[in-house]
Amino acid sequence: MAQNIYDNPDFFAGYSQLPRQVQGLAGAPEWPAIRALLPDVTGRRVADLGCGFGWASRWFHEQGAISVLGLDLSRNMIDRARADSVAAIDYRFADLETLELPTAAYDLVYSSLAFHYVRDFGRLVRMIHQALAPGGDLVFTAEHPIFMAAAHPGWQPDEDGRKTWPVNGYSIEGARRTDWFAKGVLKYHRTLATTLNTLIDAGFALRRLEEFAPTPEQIEAVPALAEELERPMMLLVAARKC
Amino acid sequence: MAQNIYDNPDFFAGYSQLPRQVQGLAGAPEWPAIRALLPDVTGRRVADLGCGFGWASRWFHEQGAISVLGLDLSRNMIDRARADSVAAIDYRFADLETLELPTAAYDLVYSSLAFHYVRDFGRLVRMIHQALAPGGDLVFTAEHPIFMAAAHPGWQPDEDGRKTWPVNGYSIEGARRTDWFAKGVLKYHRTLATTLNTLIDAGFALRRLEEFAPTPEQIEAVPALAEELERPMMLLVAARKC
Repeated sequence: MAQNIYDNPDFFAGYSQLPRQVQGLAGAPEWPAIRALLPDVTGRRVADLGCGFGWASRWFHEQGAISVLGLDLSRNMIDRARADSVAAIDYRFADLETLELPTAAYDLVYSSLAFHYVRDFGRLVRMIHQALAPGGDLVFTAEHPIFMAAAHPGWQPDEDGRKTWPVNGYSIEGARRTDWFAKGVLKYHRTLATTLNTLIDAGFALRRLEEFAPTPEQIEAVPALAEELERPMMLLVAARKC
Repeated sequence: MAQNIYDNPDFFAGYSQLPRQVQGLAGAPEWPAIRALLPDVTGRRVADLGCGFGWASRWFHEQGAISVLGLDLSRNMIDRARADSVAAIDYRFADLETLELPTAAYDLVYSSLAFHYVRDFGRLVRMIHQALAPGGDLVFTAEHPIFMAAAHPGWQPDEDGRKTWPVNGYSIEGARRTDWFAKGVLKYHRTLATTLNTLIDAGFALRRLEEFAPTPEQIEAVPALAEELERPMMLLVAARKC
């Protein structure tokens, strides 16, 4: 089973105070870029893998999705999502390492910042492909491999004092442990090539790739976002089942 | 017109001594990975954009290509390629910024380490798309944006002394000047997302992406290659005209 850091009390207490948890989608600067990748979900069946507090699941429901399944490994998250949502959204506990979904049962599989916790990405992608109807969409975000690769990730000044991100071990895939609200949070580094080739090999056509960078308007509103121009923290991918 | 650093005498003298120029394809550690991306060229029409001394152009000819066009911005390169090759290979001077090729005239467009010198990548990709026959392939390599992005690229030790590559300015595309055999060599940084989305927008389907890393056998033979595991220097892309 995947590490379930989200049910660690210290982690959950800190994580729950993030702007994206308090404010929801409006607190996630990448949300406008994600929206641009999403198909119209009116009358469509959506699965949200790693739904957290259910912010996106609720949005899909409000946009007219005919059914929304929200899955998360954290019982804390699922409890909170159920408490905050309408009964029409189906929230369930699930481990993305072992999840099986019914065949051709969804028109959109969505996931935000969950896939980098998954060890066996190939299994997950093949399972998603069979769970999508023909022409169905997979839209997901994950931590960018530039952000994840190094043994000691974190800003360092370059010779001009400019914020600079270290990269090493990029081609050496596998576990990375970092301290983020708790010690030893376990993530899995994959190269961008592996991520994209895994999708292609499973039968997806790549529609769009984004390496999230804030807009000038976002930086004006939240100046701290400017550092995101220096290195991408997030990968956004839109793929379609051929 | 693009900067023609290759006809700078100092640059050309140094560049000509690189293993990949002296030994040809055998001196390019990424060549086996490129070969794995190339379609069978027997009876096919090939254009080699940025052909240099003609090593790959000759290989396509030897593999049975029915015609090979080798193009380069450097008159030094073209002269040397003509001197070393059979008359059946057509070498010509061309600037990739302004090049026009006839419609549906090629089955494979190939390019090795030339596209990062091109300012207007979108124009070039659209031109290549119209120059390919339906189902035709584009296979190219370019410097990786992780390698190119920073204001001061170069190895730095991390806190454990491990070779670490700096990244900054990743989302800020455009000119980068570095010193490489000559001062102020001009290259154009593009994010990986821009490179791939430009291909998709032009009508290509992405077949494969590689971020070149040496094999254990290559590192055993040439231990200095081990540093290439720390950060990718090269991007290899295979795309097909839909």
